[in-house]
Amino acid sequence: MTGTEVLTGRVSDLNGPWLAEQLRKAGVDVGYTVVVGDRPTDLVDVLDFLARARVDLIVTSGGLGPTADDLTAAVVGDWQGRPSAVDPALEQRIAAIVERLSARRGWTVDPEAMAAGTAKQALVPKGAEVLEPTGTAPGLVVPGGPGPDRPPVVVLPGPPSELQGMWPAAVASSLVSAALAGRAELRQSTIRLWGTPEAAIAATLRRLEGDLGDLEITTCLRGGELEVVTRYGVALEERYQRLVDAVREEYGAAVFSTDGSTVDDQVARLLSERGLTIATAESCTAGLLAGRLTDAAGSSAWVRGGVVVYSNEAKHDLADVRTELIERHGAVSEEVAVALANGARRRLGADVGVAITGIAGPGGGTEQKPVGLVHLCVSGPDGRLSRAAVLPGGRSQVRARSVTVALHLVRELLQAG
Amino acid sequence: MTGTEVLTGRVSDLNGPWLAEQLRKAGVDVGYTVVVGDRPTDLVDVLDFLARARVDLIVTSGGLGPTADDLTAAVVGDWQGRPSAVDPALEQRIAAIVERLSARRGWTVDPEAMAAGTAKQALVPKGAEVLEPTGTAPGLVVPGGPGPDRPPVVVLPGPPSELQGMWPAAVASSLVSAALAGRAELRQSTIRLWGTPEAAIAATLRRLEGDLGDLEITTCLRGGELEVVTRYGVALEERYQRLVDAVREEYGAAVFSTDGSTVDDQVARLLSERGLTIATAESCTAGLLAGRLTDAAGSSAWVRGGVVVYSNEAKHDLADVRTELIERHGAVSEEVAVALANGARRRLGADVGVAITGIAGPGGGTEQKPVGLVHLCVSGPDGRLSRAAVLPGGRSQVRARSVTVALHLVRELLQAG
Repeated sequence: MTGTEVLTGRVSDLNGPWLAEQLRKAGVDVGYTVVVGDRPTDLVDVLDFLARARVDLIVTSGGLGPTADDLTAAVVGDWQGRPSAVDPALEQRIAAIVERLSARRGWTVDPEAMAAGTAKQALVPKGAEVLEPTGTAPGLVVPGGPGPDRPPVVVLPGPPSELQGMWPAAVASSLVSAALAGRAELRQSTIRLWGTPEAAIAATLRRLEGDLGDLEITTCLRGGELEVVTRYGVALEERYQRLVDAVREEYGAAVFSTDGSTVDDQVARLLSERGLTIATAESCTAGLLAGRLTDAAGSSAWVRGGVVVYSNEAKHDLADVRTELIERHGAVSEEVAVALANGARRRLGADVGVAITGIAGPGGGTEQKPVGLVHLCVSGPDGRLSRAAVLPGGRSQVRARSVTVALHLVRELLQAG
Repeated sequence: MTGTEVLTGRVSDLNGPWLAEQLRKAGVDVGYTVVVGDRPTDLVDVLDFLARARVDLIVTSGGLGPTADDLTAAVVGDWQGRPSAVDPALEQRIAAIVERLSARRGWTVDPEAMAAGTAKQALVPKGAEVLEPTGTAPGLVVPGGPGPDRPPVVVLPGPPSELQGMWPAAVASSLVSAALAGRAELRQSTIRLWGTPEAAIAATLRRLEGDLGDLEITTCLRGGELEVVTRYGVALEERYQRLVDAVREEYGAAVFSTDGSTVDDQVARLLSERGLTIATAESCTAGLLAGRLTDAAGSSAWVRGGVVVYSNEAKHDLADVRTELIERHGAVSEEVAVALANGARRRLGADVGVAITGIAGPGGGTEQKPVGLVHLCVSGPDGRLSRAAVLPGGRSQVRARSVTVALHLVRELLQAG
């Protein structure tokens, strides 16, 4: 194991992965992410476990709100043998924030109630460093406790935006930087493949085993994409490049990314570099593709917009799909996908049109057209690509996966052009 | 603590909450959710921790793929003192599944490579019960190990659809039902409020404290909604109702749900019961509202579709917003939101039109119109509601939150009508 073991308690879905990513970039290895409820004894059990595992730093998130069930700060303080007391200056700063927020949102709150919540949030364990609130809750850096094996604990708020806003201050704290000092730089690189089964990669890795040595490789299927994630020390860079070359040689065009970029990044780059605009027509995904195309800041430069054509009337009215075409081939058909892509392109005056029509389920499937059947089409200045797929999983998986297939189709058309 | 402590290892974002929900319904209390990497020693440390915490059952997810880094089954088997061996009949069943999948997707894979992966997935610890694959990986129920304190471990695959498909078989296993037997039924009920600060609820709960006794209450802010989640034994039903009444009395219409329904459920029900259809016009959210309105199966009965009008031209071309209106008031304005809602309604022939236009950031903000400013409008048969809000957080938070605000606006208009 390289780097520090960092343990993270009470982490919500978003905070765990985000913190792990930040720490990994700093060469720090996250040992465990533990999610634990609001019971003090459970939190103490986890802290004990992490201390026994001899980690160098513990990061907690959540449990800093004004309500009585939010106990993290006090529990951590007690665990470190550091009783908490109200910090009057901090209390005033929090009160000022709450007042400003209440005024802006037009809340009328009982001042006494507010004062109780504010006093609770201003409790600071003895000797702890305060991290200024980015929402209303302050964070803490609590120094190591009574035993030699109790590491410092960084206590952060639960809302992801507050946690992320506070993280730079946490890292700048001298206690934290001391705990994380001297880490060897650990690289993490990802190879992404599209349309390759996990078992094939497993065989390739088994065959290469002797040559891979200390590369730490994990593979993961993610919505139809196969990710090969490798962690390695700087000295192994050349060995990692040999792995990349071997995978490229064996899988050719199925390897769509080795530089960390996602298919979203690549589609954005291809459109932006070529100065092309894009428009969508979506039936079963009903806006999720357009939503994903606009996740990135700046996407208004290439995304024109789109139409959500859930009903057949909408397909006709908003994307000029002839009613007769739908009657003959059905709304889920290659013909309608092509007409939708062309319609979106024309109606929005875009260079590229992309369409999805399918049966997300759970109802609506037939023997000929089962649940999961999706027809897709991309139409652009360099021609057109159509595809049909039967996607596995429930309604939300079929919808999410359809969007991923559509992005790959756009990528393929633009790369070929 | 009520019920069994169940500990979950190697859980991904989706599986942890899903399993916790299933177990909670069965009256089982989840003690910890631990996410751990692919290193065997880390997994063993976590198993040891959970055993020491004297849980009755451990559930793991993930690490069952054909690749060499997927080690959960073997590690758990070894930990229980149960060496693994290939189950030949299981191996054949997995091979048949992989063959069928490969044929359907047109994969060409080296048969030897496939065989190695299949043999790896057919490894079964001595005495363990096999759960038939719902994807390609079988699950396992591994009985308790050498020490008296090692509980049975349920080993499930990582992909959520596979895990969820396998869960009924896991629960039906006699080992699992024995471990979970005799649980007192534990209810969990949620009160949802819209537009109430967490500090206010904190004060209310503090005031009621004497009357709440053994109700286990947690509050949580989730995208602007405030959730008050209470767990209690059946005998405390009346006491819980008193809490609900007290919160209702204090917060009135801000309490939008006490029956577990989300705002999505309520909007769907209001539209469906009144036989109304809906259409969207989205700028900064670019399809996310339409995507969320169609998350529910059967939504095609009330969702007509929508337009994603990212560019000003699209606002004009697809939703009839006059260019002159945009020039005078700006694309992010109440006037344009109203025009978009009316345009969506008219263009899609829907009863209700809902529109979002805002500045999601990070760029594009001004002093008058900062990042986070969103104008929304719902227009329906009973009239119209407009709202402006400055939403906190980064780009994705502003977008997600805008969708939630829009759903509440639809709910308010339809409930008033």
